[in-house]
Amino acid sequence: MEEKGKLNEECGLFGICLPEKKDVMHLSYYALYALQHRGQQAAGIAVATDGAIACRKGKGLTNEVFSKEVLENATEGNMAIAHCLYGRQESDAAENAQPLSTSHLEGRMAIAMNGALTNGKILKEALERQGCLFHTSSDCEIVAYQIIRHRLSEPSLEKAIEKAMDELEGAFSILVMSPTELIAARDPFGFRPLVLGTFEGGCIVASETCALDSIGAGFVRDIRPGEILVMKNGKATSYDGHCGKVPKRLCVFEHIYFARPDSFIDGASVQIARQRAGAFLALEHPVQADVVVGVPDSGIEAAMGYAKQSGIPYGIGFIKNKYIGRTFIAPGQRTREDLVRMKLNPVASTVKGKRVVLVDDSIVRGTTSRIIVKLLREAGAKEVHLMSSAPKFLYPCFYGTDISSSDYLIAYNHTDREMEEIIGVDSIGFLSVENVVKLADNGDRGFCTACFDMKYPTKIHAEVKRCRFDLEPGKEDN
Amino acid sequence: MEEKGKLNEECGLFGICLPEKKDVMHLSYYALYALQHRGQQAAGIAVATDGAIACRKGKGLTNEVFSKEVLENATEGNMAIAHCLYGRQESDAAENAQPLSTSHLEGRMAIAMNGALTNGKILKEALERQGCLFHTSSDCEIVAYQIIRHRLSEPSLEKAIEKAMDELEGAFSILVMSPTELIAARDPFGFRPLVLGTFEGGCIVASETCALDSIGAGFVRDIRPGEILVMKNGKATSYDGHCGKVPKRLCVFEHIYFARPDSFIDGASVQIARQRAGAFLALEHPVQADVVVGVPDSGIEAAMGYAKQSGIPYGIGFIKNKYIGRTFIAPGQRTREDLVRMKLNPVASTVKGKRVVLVDDSIVRGTTSRIIVKLLREAGAKEVHLMSSAPKFLYPCFYGTDISSSDYLIAYNHTDREMEEIIGVDSIGFLSVENVVKLADNGDRGFCTACFDMKYPTKIHAEVKRCRFDLEPGKEDN
Amino acid sequence: MEEKGKLNEECGLFGICLPEKKDVMHLSYYALYALQHRGQQAAGIAVATDGAIACRKGKGLTNEVFSKEVLENATEGNMAIAHCLYGRQESDAAENAQPLSTSHLEGRMAIAMNGALTNGKILKEALERQGCLFHTSSDCEIVAYQIIRHRLSEPSLEKAIEKAMDELEGAFSILVMSPTELIAARDPFGFRPLVLGTFEGGCIVASETCALDSIGAGFVRDIRPGEILVMKNGKATSYDGHCGKVPKRLCVFEHIYFARPDSFIDGASVQIARQRAGAFLALEHPVQADVVVGVPDSGIEAAMGYAKQSGIPYGIGFIKNKYIGRTFIAPGQRTREDLVRMKLNPVASTVKGKRVVLVDDSIVRGTTSRIIVKLLREAGAKEVHLMSSAPKFLYPCFYGTDISSSDYLIAYNHTDREMEEIIGVDSIGFLSVENVVKLADNGDRGFCTACFDMKYPTKIHAEVKRCRFDLEPGKEDN
Amino acid sequence: MEEKGKLNEECGLFGICLPEKKDVMHLSYYALYALQHRGQQAAGIAVATDGAIACRKGKGLTNEVFSKEVLENATEGNMAIAHCLYGRQESDAAENAQPLSTSHLEGRMAIAMNGALTNGKILKEALERQGCLFHTSSDCEIVAYQIIRHRLSEPSLEKAIEKAMDELEGAFSILVMSPTELIAARDPFGFRPLVLGTFEGGCIVASETCALDSIGAGFVRDIRPGEILVMKNGKATSYDGHCGKVPKRLCVFEHIYFARPDSFIDGASVQIARQRAGAFLALEHPVQADVVVGVPDSGIEAAMGYAKQSGIPYGIGFIKNKYIGRTFIAPGQRTREDLVRMKLNPVASTVKGKRVVLVDDSIVRGTTSRIIVKLLREAGAKEVHLMSSAPKFLYPCFYGTDISSSDYLIAYNHTDREMEEIIGVDSIGFLSVENVVKLADNGDRGFCTACFDMKYPTKIHAEVKRCRFDLEPGKEDN
Repeated sequence: MEEKGKLNEECGLFGICLPEKKDVMHLSYYALYALQHRGQQAAGIAVATDGAIACRKGKGLTNEVFSKEVLENATEGNMAIAHCLYGRQESDAAENAQPLSTSHLEGRMAIAMNGALTNGKILKEALERQGCLFHTSSDCEIVAYQIIRHRLSEPSLEKAIEKAMDELEGAFSILVMSPTELIAARDPFGFRPLVLGTFEGGCIVASETCALDSIGAGFVRDIRPGEILVMKNGKATSYDGHCGKVPKRLCVFEHIYFARPDSFIDGASVQIARQRAGAFLALEHPVQADVVVGVPDSGIEAAMGYAKQSGIPYGIGFIKNKYIGRTFIAPGQRTREDLVRMKLNPVASTVKGKRVVLVDDSIVRGTTSRIIVKLLREAGAKEVHLMSSAPKFLYPCFYGTDISSSDYLIAYNHTDREMEEIIGVDSIGFLSVENVVKLADNGDRGFCTACFDMKYPTKIHAEVKRCRFDLEPGKEDN
Repeated sequence: MEEKGKLNEECGLFGICLPEKKDVMHLSYYALYALQHRGQQAAGIAVATDGAIACRKGKGLTNEVFSKEVLENATEGNMAIAHCLYGRQESDAAENAQPLSTSHLEGRMAIAMNGALTNGKILKEALERQGCLFHTSSDCEIVAYQIIRHRLSEPSLEKAIEKAMDELEGAFSILVMSPTELIAARDPFGFRPLVLGTFEGGCIVASETCALDSIGAGFVRDIRPGEILVMKNGKATSYDGHCGKVPKRLCVFEHIYFARPDSFIDGASVQIARQRAGAFLALEHPVQADVVVGVPDSGIEAAMGYAKQSGIPYGIGFIKNKYIGRTFIAPGQRTREDLVRMKLNPVASTVKGKRVVLVDDSIVRGTTSRIIVKLLREAGAKEVHLMSSAPKFLYPCFYGTDISSSDYLIAYNHTDREMEEIIGVDSIGFLSVENVVKLADNGDRGFCTACFDMKYPTKIHAEVKRCRFDLEPGKEDN
Repeated sequence: MEEKGKLNEECGLFGICLPEKKDVMHLSYYALYALQHRGQQAAGIAVATDGAIACRKGKGLTNEVFSKEVLENATEGNMAIAHCLYGRQESDAAENAQPLSTSHLEGRMAIAMNGALTNGKILKEALERQGCLFHTSSDCEIVAYQIIRHRLSEPSLEKAIEKAMDELEGAFSILVMSPTELIAARDPFGFRPLVLGTFEGGCIVASETCALDSIGAGFVRDIRPGEILVMKNGKATSYDGHCGKVPKRLCVFEHIYFARPDSFIDGASVQIARQRAGAFLALEHPVQADVVVGVPDSGIEAAMGYAKQSGIPYGIGFIKNKYIGRTFIAPGQRTREDLVRMKLNPVASTVKGKRVVLVDDSIVRGTTSRIIVKLLREAGAKEVHLMSSAPKFLYPCFYGTDISSSDYLIAYNHTDREMEEIIGVDSIGFLSVENVVKLADNGDRGFCTACFDMKYPTKIHAEVKRCRFDLEPGKEDN
Repeated sequence: MEEKGKLNEECGLFGICLPEKKDVMHLSYYALYALQHRGQQAAGIAVATDGAIACRKGKGLTNEVFSKEVLENATEGNMAIAHCLYGRQESDAAENAQPLSTSHLEGRMAIAMNGALTNGKILKEALERQGCLFHTSSDCEIVAYQIIRHRLSEPSLEKAIEKAMDELEGAFSILVMSPTELIAARDPFGFRPLVLGTFEGGCIVASETCALDSIGAGFVRDIRPGEILVMKNGKATSYDGHCGKVPKRLCVFEHIYFARPDSFIDGASVQIARQRAGAFLALEHPVQADVVVGVPDSGIEAAMGYAKQSGIPYGIGFIKNKYIGRTFIAPGQRTREDLVRMKLNPVASTVKGKRVVLVDDSIVRGTTSRIIVKLLREAGAKEVHLMSSAPKFLYPCFYGTDISSSDYLIAYNHTDREMEEIIGVDSIGFLSVENVVKLADNGDRGFCTACFDMKYPTKIHAEVKRCRFDLEPGKEDN
């Protein structure tokens, strides 16, 4: 469900570096389709051809930005980087569309980024003090400046990126393309996924493996946290100066919600991680019920995991209207409930007269959950037990997820009993933080759980906190 | 999968008759969204207000035809009829968009239809001999003429429709709207579904119950085969002169493929019918396997039915890219396989190293099946056993399904062994005709199975046969 | 000035018949551009290729209906007919776009028409009594039915058209295309222009000669009033059964307003006719003034004629904003005056401190004239003398011009003194009916002047009159 | 005629500063319509409201960028700046659309510019050396950086602009808007026009007076060369530190070609200047002829001036198709001649059998002139004498006009006799440089004539010359 008060998806990155000229724009376009779930507000592709970089981007889905005419007139190239944007505000989408295509002393550079800096505000102010102008409100432009400034004194772009990474704090995967090379970097904590693939004698980098599959590329390995990978003429060279200095802290929502279930992140299957979330839930919150259903799309796998572990049959509880997209227009005086009803219809033959376990990926504000539960009851469900694949959301995220303040979080403000009453369920269960970190394996392989337990991996500067989240003094622990 | 050589979906109908003026255009628009799976080539809504009928229609999906501006400027009305078109040829979509809005001696009339006449060609020629002009190539215009000609001598529109139904042969559900009444009729065999609902003191008719659910309307009952229902000021009156003279012959593909799984047709749940198809398949074609997967979307429920019956675990085998819609542009030199790969990615964690039962709704040409099987094997499937919820397709359909000639049907031209080889599977299984008629219940409740066994419920005129299907003399049996 | 209360432009026709296949759709598209001034509400082209007719039409200007994609995918053909629509109501534009493409007993037929029938209502009712359905509200559909009904008993399409013309009353030029021939006909009074041209061994017919010039075609001659011209394989044959039975009655507004000044109608230059209008005005209404200016676009030539005859210098009085088209959006709270100001800016250097003769093509309601005069005075004009190339509009037109009732006509309701006061001019002058018929030559060559003097060439049936114009009993004279 | 090898039009600027909030976006939109002739590649408006600046811009005409929805949702503001772009390359239009909306240390700033810097390359390189990134290829971004860098040390934006102007060389009018003030500046030579107007208690600045007229604003005065005008709460304060140090050098093409004839530049009527050009031509190049015609649109006034001075009658020689705009699509295999024929039709009644004087604004490559002359001869002209309102183009322009190299200039490469032969005329005449500077008055009021006589007002740096024009060593004189 795309809605206010839900977690929102994370931008998608794709880059390709081939030894020869190919239709890299078309390949990037296909890959953006596969990564579209990570961001629907804007899309862009920058292509390097014969020493020049051409960039096309705009507001909207891939198919809105890349018309037939644009695609037909695309020139070939041997490198490209592409990006799909999830942005907090619709109004910023046109301005913040990436890649940024800029020129600097040494020529042209295109850059795209996924994530969020925690010291962006501080770096930006320092740059402005030196007379820098900002065209966008995205952290990507800050990263671009940091790199370019180091480029003035460093002998190569990769060295400049290495220096820049000393200053950047937060979650980021970045792709930088000059007319001759393509460089990928993942932040030292590895908050956001980034994988390396192989395609027709060259290299591909992408946020998720599903992008590799979509064009028939082979999977090579995950880019390591802190790694800088320089690709040139289809060959990749790795720089590991920032690797291994801090523990890995992958955002756990990549498994629970962001990534596509057919993707593998840091070696683990997203689908299996989701099923494991359901299985852990069944162990932590056993209930007497007749059917387990999931909220499409990301609750489905967890529901199947719950069903398998509990022995309660799995059923298809809802049909999601696949024609209602981002640009759906809702004329007339419709309530929020009317709109949920349009998008999601309960399957009466599955739930009528039954005690239902309803599994969702997470519960943020609880508003939509309340409506979904109401629909289930109207369709004849006798009992509804709501299970959340994610632990209770208590604290804001500063790493690119759109949870801005505890005030909006139902679990921050209410007890379980209150939540059950507000949402209208017979019982409610959240996955524990102890188990959520085991989703990808049987032990903790390194996840960021700050939104559940406030253990922010990076320093959270006072300036940043202030604008998004008034932490109470006693609670501040890093 | 929308593709050539697959069954195509059937047009959707919606009508609303309220005692007072409301935003009937908006309600129709929402209902078209719920029925969109039945036809994506064109959409239209005709609204009756104060004795006038205004019609808006065009090529494309509901959201392409009804822009924000159109919706905002919509006038209220107390009746509306709406239609979404599945057309055989893209090029006809603009011309054949429905409702038809016409004027005649007694005023204005809007009409929409779902299905196909088997004597359309004959009726059309007779009309032309009397100087009639045709603006479209759709059967709906023929029906309109038949009704209007009777209207000249009959005292009311319903009487004219009753007379017209004496002459119409084939599969049809029709909606006719004058400025003062809305009339729905279902053909005597009941080939296509049509249901009656209730909404704010008035009536609704729709192809499927999911359209009722989408706007929060109540379900009343199915329109009976042969029934004519006259709605005026929100009240419905039934005429049953054509009811019960012939046996019910619902198209079995409504359950297998066309309808949305959350709909109920003639009292039976589509979802359960699909699960039963899977269960029958498990009984008819047992295999030793490790996982059962379905081809999205309509193979999913059958796969779950197969899994449950066989005891083999169900798994999510494919992720379907939900952003690739009707208007997807495929730039560059892509093969059919590349495109399937874009749309449908196998989930390696489900199938790797396993013996897989793959359930699809039907096998028409086998082309896509072959590619899907290849993808499964690339993802590591050790064995693939392909099961079809539909029996073997052997004969053309004359009732609105887009199967034009046996020549294209893989099962008509090949043995099971040949098909296994062509498609690349370890075994293949089709549901039997004996069981397919039991999908909705434990006995045969009246289905058309002509495409499997040539038992056409209506006369198939030589003229019609000739243009679509050269039956061999010996085979002709009705 | 496109505005309510002004004469509106008349549809444009174009047809091409070549001995070989060519890009006739492209040629028609270019010709529609040249005829666009005759109608901007809809555009359409029907192309005949290999026995089939394909038609594309829609609401809007030529470039809105014919996108790059449509044009690039156009198939070649050896015949085409094209039409641009002026319609009375924006809302009808989509429905009434022409050509109509229909099928009938003998095959397919496309038809397009320019003008209006005076017995349309009567013919339509008779057709409806025989069970005919109407999809549009245009007279063209009535003409199509009349032709097709005769076609059932006549051996050829041309004979059917000849018979149909016996029944059609009013102003009409029509183009009819079957898969094998293209037939043009002009009504016996010759209300609307139609010319024959030659192009690459074939024939062209068009509403105006400027369409011939636009594609480099040669001019052959005007189609005669009442003539039927049959074109086949690029050769034309004339049928003159309806020629010469009634006097020619060309609509005088073709010269004054509708046609493009570079066109020639029935042998006379439109530009010279307009200049003659100005010269006659100077003779009939001499004033003491310093400069003569015209209201763009159609008042310009008349202003130059006035200037030359009077000896008062001609000046460019207004700059018209060429970017404000049919689809101009006027946000905010703008008055009519604000909008005129946007479109038309007086040139102060021409009029400041001067006594100005302002020549316009006609004065219908006087609303815009009042604003234009105000702008001239603000720009410093000392005196303004308003001259109209058309005589006083007193009666409605039934031949396709959009003057529906005397009630709206300033000259019908006011004396010259009153008009001067309302519009705010120092004097006002209208061309006399005696001289308007001499515009194209030194004697009366046959013009319809019914809107000035009520001498309707055809019978005006009571039914028609009633709906548009309540003639007082004593005034009824034909 | 918009074409390659012709002078192209110059960007348009508009700014408004009111004491209260109004629909400044709508007013800017109307003004852009009036200035649209100065640039059709992109349009943009930035609005300041309550301390925030929102900017909307894009490729295309005003009506393409500002949809109904955008306009309806426009928030009110008390200041706005707007820009329409003429760009050299279509491909840059999206990137170079203005205003630029940027953030810097002190907040937000929007900036728009008209003209071209002659030291842009030098300044840009210096900025890049300090780590600046450039998102566009427009000089406007360079100006923005120069201002912002000074803003770091200067106490106010106006002081920063004053300092920046010390470094900027070339032709420029600029508008800078902070959330609280709007500043306009004109370069010290006054290459490009800029006027001050008054509107509802506030100030307006615009490239031309026609923009003031379009919204009913009053004209106050021209902004002086070198003047900086600071507007705040509707009040303007002037800074004249850069005024009067160098002579005025208005681009003479503003009068001949760029500006709208109803505008006044530095006190002189554009229309009268063009008529004077024609009159001077008649004196310099008298011919025996029967009619004088102008090439629409900018040759018309000059033709009238020639006619008046010579006593030869003026005639309308061409009808320009007003429906063929910037986005006209030309399908099929059309020659350049076909396209000119579509756009421009000679009026045979004006030129047939006559000796014609043809007046055009300028002759750059001669390609279009040749076709126009051919059309005139086909329409029956006996002789054609071609007159150019502009002197012979010999040298490239570095101030924003799109004449990049002498190589393309027919007059640089050919004698008059050769040109007559190439273009196909009986004689050719160019206005002399002596007279062109007198267009706006009887003496030289200060024009840049560098493209005729190489007297560049500013230094032309070697770097700039090299990229656009290889001056031969001996010719280099500044």
